[in-house]
Amino acid sequence: MSNLSGVELPVLEPEAVAPCCPPLTSAELSEADAVKMAAMFKALGDPVRLRLFSKVASHPDGEACVCDIQDVGVSQPTVSHHLKKLKDAGLLTSERRGTWVYYRVEPSVLAAMGQLLGQAAA
Amino acid sequence: MSNLSGVELPVLEPEAVAPCCPPLTSAELSEADAVKMAAMFKALGDPVRLRLFSKVASHPDGEACVCDIQDVGVSQPTVSHHLKKLKDAGLLTSERRGTWVYYRVEPSVLAAMGQLLGQAAA
Repeated sequence: MSNLSGVELPVLEPEAVAPCCPPLTSAELSEADAVKMAAMFKALGDPVRLRLFSKVASHPDGEACVCDIQDVGVSQPTVSHHLKKLKDAGLLTSERRGTWVYYRVEPSVLAAMGQLLGQAAA
Repeated sequence: MSNLSGVELPVLEPEAVAPCCPPLTSAELSEADAVKMAAMFKALGDPVRLRLFSKVASHPDGEACVCDIQDVGVSQPTVSHHLKKLKDAGLLTSERRGTWVYYRVEPSVLAAMGQLLGQAAA
């Protein structure tokens, strides 16, 4: 399972994905913050993962059942693998209810990435 | 040289990195846009590349000489390799002046990534 994407992503502790960092255009990233933020960008650096993330993020109630987002042209185990990578990077949270697992975007992490790329610079 | 990071990044044509895509929270990404945007996120998905990018982006005049941004704890050839990856992904542009190469952030690409991560959702 771990070699499906050919790339290992670091697993971050919840406190490691707390919002951080001013816009890239306003200050240089520290080495520690670069490690933390690069892991998030890396998680979105695969087209299938990015599409899965976009499906969850754009789902009407901000939450998607895994059963609703599997049409990305890869097998179900590969979908599960990619969803796990997104969870490990702190970008998604999940909750099992009955038969299905439901995914949500972690808004503070999305905000941290957006802030780093700096609308503030506009 | 091409195996320094262990990961090959796709080389995008200039028109492929034009701004695109509404915020992830408002609409699902198409497959083609996901390929395009994932390449940009992947380019930032390495701590050394992200620090180099942040050094260029935060440099006082929005432009940095390669001679000013080499203190990231890796060899000069590795710095050059990572800068090339950032250029290939459309995130940086470069210009040689005399002895040195100067790098600038491509603002439309930074804006496209920021927009995708969607301050608009706030």
